[in-house]
Amino acid sequence: MEQRITLITLGVSDLARSKAFYEALGWRGQEVQETVFFQAGGLGLVLWSREKLAADCGLEAGPPPSGFGGIALAHNVRSDAEVDALLALVEKAGGTVTKPPAVNAIGFYSSAFTDPDGHAWEVAHNPAFPLAEDGTVTLPDFGADR
Amino acid sequence: MEQRITLITLGVSDLARSKAFYEALGWRGQEVQETVFFQAGGLGLVLWSREKLAADCGLEAGPPPSGFGGIALAHNVRSDAEVDALLALVEKAGGTVTKPPAVNAIGFYSSAFTDPDGHAWEVAHNPAFPLAEDGTVTLPDFGADR
Repeated sequence: MEQRITLITLGVSDLARSKAFYEALGWRGQEVQETVFFQAGGLGLVLWSREKLAADCGLEAGPPPSGFGGIALAHNVRSDAEVDALLALVEKAGGTVTKPPAVNAIGFYSSAFTDPDGHAWEVAHNPAFPLAEDGTVTLPDFGADR
Repeated sequence: MEQRITLITLGVSDLARSKAFYEALGWRGQEVQETVFFQAGGLGLVLWSREKLAADCGLEAGPPPSGFGGIALAHNVRSDAEVDALLALVEKAGGTVTKPPAVNAIGFYSSAFTDPDGHAWEVAHNPAFPLAEDGTVTLPDFGADR
């Protein structure tokens, strides 16, 4: 299995609401057959009905998790000011700021929010994880065994 | 907000078990401070304690979802045979095949599994979403408004 991911699909309960939220953050995508596709670097971020996505995975949709769904997406930026600016945009777009921007225990500036379906995003400026000009990240060599 | 994702962090209940599972699929990463980092193309796939990840997002961990957590990761490959081979590996590694490989309603060959914590993965050979040599995907132009 090559170490790569092709698509991240977020199950949503109201496609128009979710699309509007991500568009308010500046994302632009294509809506096709009740699905929204955003190009996100070398992969796709997709919004699709939670029920249809669960069925496509051979799973019962069940009720949405009341709290944390178990996965967090991180969007790292290049300065503390960018963290603040993005979180301000999230609030304006109707997202829920679950962790206001602050220096965390590790010593970098980070924050978190949830989208309209409760999907968790972290927004951080972490100089230890430098971003290339195209936004890709190369994990540091921690000196750990591989 | 640039259209990109830096990290995908999977909350796990037993780090050693999850690490062993992804290693059995062929992934190689670095374990640092009870966290496993895998380079996955231009981003990082991370395994971390579900409770710590929830807290880092300012959320209550709550019990893990009994069914579908709400997000699916897709790993597209270049042939139907690769789908079969990967799913065989998943079974051997102790993953749960939730949708055996088959041609889906759209007409391409796909399947799905869950990892030890129930995180959903789809494995598909979808010629409509061509993969570059480095494994990145450029979404097709569906002719939809942007």
